[in-house]
Amino acid sequence: MNYSIIIYILGHIFNFSAVFMILPCITAVIYQEPAGLWFLVCGLVLAFVGVLLSKKKPENKKIYAKEGMVIVALSWLFISLIGALPYMLTGSIPSFTNALFESVSGFSTTGASILNDVESLPRSVLFWRCFTNWIGGMGVLVFIMALLPYLGASNMYLMRAESTGPSVGKLVPKVQKTAAWLYAMYMGLTILQIILLLFGGMPVFDAVCDSLATAGTGGFAVKSDSITGYNTYIQVVITIFMFLFGINFKFYFLLIGKKFKDAFKMEEVRWYFIIYIAAVALITLDITKDIGNLAVNLKDAAFQVSTIITTTGFATADYCTWPLFSQTLLLMLMFLGACAGSTSGGIKVSRFILYIKMMKKELAFQLHPHSIKKIKMDERTVEHEILRSANGFLLVYLLIGIVSLILVSLDNFDFATSFSAVAACLNDIGPGLGMVGPTGNYAEFSILSKYVLMFDMLAGRLEMIPMMLLLTPATWRRQ
Amino acid sequence: MNYSIIIYILGHIFNFSAVFMILPCITAVIYQEPAGLWFLVCGLVLAFVGVLLSKKKPENKKIYAKEGMVIVALSWLFISLIGALPYMLTGSIPSFTNALFESVSGFSTTGASILNDVESLPRSVLFWRCFTNWIGGMGVLVFIMALLPYLGASNMYLMRAESTGPSVGKLVPKVQKTAAWLYAMYMGLTILQIILLLFGGMPVFDAVCDSLATAGTGGFAVKSDSITGYNTYIQVVITIFMFLFGINFKFYFLLIGKKFKDAFKMEEVRWYFIIYIAAVALITLDITKDIGNLAVNLKDAAFQVSTIITTTGFATADYCTWPLFSQTLLLMLMFLGACAGSTSGGIKVSRFILYIKMMKKELAFQLHPHSIKKIKMDERTVEHEILRSANGFLLVYLLIGIVSLILVSLDNFDFATSFSAVAACLNDIGPGLGMVGPTGNYAEFSILSKYVLMFDMLAGRLEMIPMMLLLTPATWRRQ
Repeated sequence: MNYSIIIYILGHIFNFSAVFMILPCITAVIYQEPAGLWFLVCGLVLAFVGVLLSKKKPENKKIYAKEGMVIVALSWLFISLIGALPYMLTGSIPSFTNALFESVSGFSTTGASILNDVESLPRSVLFWRCFTNWIGGMGVLVFIMALLPYLGASNMYLMRAESTGPSVGKLVPKVQKTAAWLYAMYMGLTILQIILLLFGGMPVFDAVCDSLATAGTGGFAVKSDSITGYNTYIQVVITIFMFLFGINFKFYFLLIGKKFKDAFKMEEVRWYFIIYIAAVALITLDITKDIGNLAVNLKDAAFQVSTIITTTGFATADYCTWPLFSQTLLLMLMFLGACAGSTSGGIKVSRFILYIKMMKKELAFQLHPHSIKKIKMDERTVEHEILRSANGFLLVYLLIGIVSLILVSLDNFDFATSFSAVAACLNDIGPGLGMVGPTGNYAEFSILSKYVLMFDMLAGRLEMIPMMLLLTPATWRRQ
Repeated sequence: MNYSIIIYILGHIFNFSAVFMILPCITAVIYQEPAGLWFLVCGLVLAFVGVLLSKKKPENKKIYAKEGMVIVALSWLFISLIGALPYMLTGSIPSFTNALFESVSGFSTTGASILNDVESLPRSVLFWRCFTNWIGGMGVLVFIMALLPYLGASNMYLMRAESTGPSVGKLVPKVQKTAAWLYAMYMGLTILQIILLLFGGMPVFDAVCDSLATAGTGGFAVKSDSITGYNTYIQVVITIFMFLFGINFKFYFLLIGKKFKDAFKMEEVRWYFIIYIAAVALITLDITKDIGNLAVNLKDAAFQVSTIITTTGFATADYCTWPLFSQTLLLMLMFLGACAGSTSGGIKVSRFILYIKMMKKELAFQLHPHSIKKIKMDERTVEHEILRSANGFLLVYLLIGIVSLILVSLDNFDFATSFSAVAACLNDIGPGLGMVGPTGNYAEFSILSKYVLMFDMLAGRLEMIPMMLLLTPATWRRQ
C-alpha cells in the first residue's frame, strides 16, 4: 500500500474543505449571522492541517486499484467528519452522532435528516447542508482532480471508485480534463436551474440552496415542508431538473459536441426516458379518480417519479396516501435509481439493463447449452469483467441491505420504518415510509442504527465496493 | 422439439395421477364418505386419458435440456389441473380458480390456502390436500422415473429441472436408481414421523396427513389452527422432522452408506446446522423477557425457525407479536430456504454459500485485478456454469418477484399483505403477514392476483427457469 500518496490526497481533502468553508462564510456575512465565525475557524484549522499533510509530494505517484478504493473510502469518511464540525460548533446539532449523520447524509446525497425544525437553523448552516449535497453529487475527488494536475493519468482508479455505474469511462482522453468537463456541465446546469427558479419568484437563498440539492440529487431543502410550499412553476422546474440530473453526463457531453445521434443512441438514456414516462403515466392514471384533477395529478406524479427515480428525496404530495399500485411502482424506482454517470443513487438503469440481458442469456443457455452469445450494450460487446462486477455489486448490495436491516430492527420500530430506512439510506434517497416518511425524520434511531445507516449511505454513494474493502482484512494485509 | 416424448410423459402424468387417487378413495371408505366416489370417477377418467396418451412409445427417446424444461413445466401444470378436480367435484371448493390455487399450492409445497374452514371438508379431501404436498415435495417426475425404467439415462435433464439446488447430482450412477433411493429415504422418514407422532397420542388420520405435509415441507394441516392445538411432544416431533426434511437427501444417503465423514463434510449441511442453531438462539434470547419461560420460548422459536427455514408454513405461535428483530430474522430465513436436494423452497443454503463466495472473490478481484481464484465447494472447484446459473437464478427470482408485486398491488391491500403474499408464494412457504398471516388466507385476492401467485408458487418449486421458459417465445420457435 502506497501510504504516502494516501496521506497526500487526504491532505488535499482538508485543503479543499477549507476552501469550501468560504461559501457559508459569505452567506453568513450577507445575512449577518455570527455563525459565520465558526466556518472561518473551521476553514483556518482545516487549511493548516491540509497544508501539513500535503506538503510532501510523494515520490511514487502510482495509484493501483487497491489504493484507489482506500483513498476514496477514507476521503469520504474524512470529509464527512469535517462536514459535521460546523453543525456542532454553531450549536445547530450539538450531538456528535447526529451531526455526523447529517454530514454523511449530505455528502452521500441521501438527504436523510435528524432535524425536526429546519427553518430555525442559521442560513449559513442551511447553505452548508445543501452545498454538501452538491459536492457529494459529482464527487469531491473528481473536484480535486479537475483542479489538480499533479496526479496525472494514474488517478483513473479514483475516478472509477467515486463515479457511479458499472463501467466508468473517460469523456476525453485525459482524466483531468474529463473531471473538468463533468464539473463544468454540472455547474452550468445548476446555474441554469437557479436562474429559472428566480424567474418563478423564488427567494434567492432558496433558489440557490434548492438548486445545489437538486443537482446533487441530495434533497436537503431549506424548508421543513421541503418543496410543498412553492408555486406550481417552481415545482415543475424542480421536477424537470431532478430528471435532468438523473441523466448520464456523457449524454450532455455528446450534445455539446453536437453528436446528437450518438447521444440518443445511448441505450441507458433511452430506457431512462421510457421508464420515466411509463411510470408517470401509470401513476397519473392510478391516482386520477376525477378527470378534472388530471393536470394536478400529472404534476404530482411527475414530481414524485423524478424525486424517487433520481433518489433526490424532495417532497410535495404525500405518496403514502396514494393507492398501493403507485406506491409499489415508486418503491421499485427507489431501488432502480437513474443513469450511471449521474449524481443519483440506487442500482442504476444501466446495471438493470445488464441484469435483464444476463437473464435473457441465461434462459437462452438453458434452451441451448452449447450456444455462445455475447452481451452487447450501445452496440459494443460488454466485457466479462463488467458483467462479473455487476453481479458482485448486486450480491454485496443485498448482503449489506440484509445485515443492516437485521441490525436496525433491534430498535424494534415497525417493519415499514426499519425496511424503508435501510432502503432509503442504501439507495441515497432520504425519506422512506412510516416514522421516516416525507414528514418524519431519523432522530429517534439508536446510535447503533445511525452508524449502520451512515455506513449504508456511504456504501450507496460509492457503490458498495470501497466501503466493503475498508472492512476487509485483506485490504490491510501486507503482501 | 420432441413432441412425441412430451406427450408420452404427460400420458404417464395422467396414469400416475389415477393411481394417486386410490389413496383418498381408501380414506373415503374408512371414514364412509360419499366424496370418495368422485375420486374413483377421477381415477378412471385419468387412467383412460393416460393410457391413450402413453400408448405409443416414442421412437426418439432423447430428451435435451429444452425438452426437459418443457416437460417438467407442463407436467406440473397438468398435475395441478388434475389435482383441482377433486376439490371441485366434491363441492369442497366450487370455484375453478380457487380449486386450482389450492392444488398448485399443494403440489408446489407452498401451503397457501383459500379455505376459511379446513375442518368442514371431508377427510378424503383433507388427505388429498396433504398428499399433494408429499408428491410435490420430492417431485412427481422423480416418482415416475423411480418406477419407470423406459426412459433410461436421458432423463437426467428431467431430474435436474425438477430437483432443487444449484447443481443436481446423482447419488448412484443410474438416474432411475437415484430416483428410487430418494423416494425410499423420503418414505422411510415419513413413516418414522408417523410412528413417532402416534406415540404422542395423535389421531391416526392427523398423524398421517401432517407427516405427509411435513415431508413435502408443504404445511397443509388438517386443522384450521394448524399445529397449535397439539401437545408439546407432538410439536417437538414436528419441529425436528421439519428440520430433517430441510437437509440435502444426499446427507442421508451418505449416512446409510456409513460415510459419516463425507456426510458431515458437506459444507451446505454444516451451514444449515449453524444458521439453524444461531437463529433459534437469537430468537429465543429476543423473545425471552422472563427466564421462567425459557423452555417454552425455546420450543416456540425452534418450531418457527423450522417451519420458516424449510418453507413448510405450519403455525403454532403468532410470530407477528414478537419483537421486530425476531420477525426480521424469520423474514430473512423465508428467502434463504433450507438445503438444496431437500423438499424446501427459497433460494437454498448452497446458493447462499455460492453468493458469499462469489462476493469474496469479487472483493479480492477489486484489490488485485490480476488475481485468479477458483471458487470451491466441498473441496472441489465449482464449474463456471453453476456460478453463472446461480446468478441467473437470482436475477430471474428478483424479476419475477418485482413483476408479481406490482401486479398484486393492483388489489390495493396493504403493503405487508401484498409483499408477504408474493414472498410466501415465490418461496413456497404459505402464510405471510397481514391478511395472509398465520390466521388468515388468500381467498380475498382478485383472480389476476391468484394466477400471478400460482405462477410464483410453481416458479418457486421448479426454481424459476422452467416456468420462465414456458413464457419465452424462443422455446417454441422452430430452429
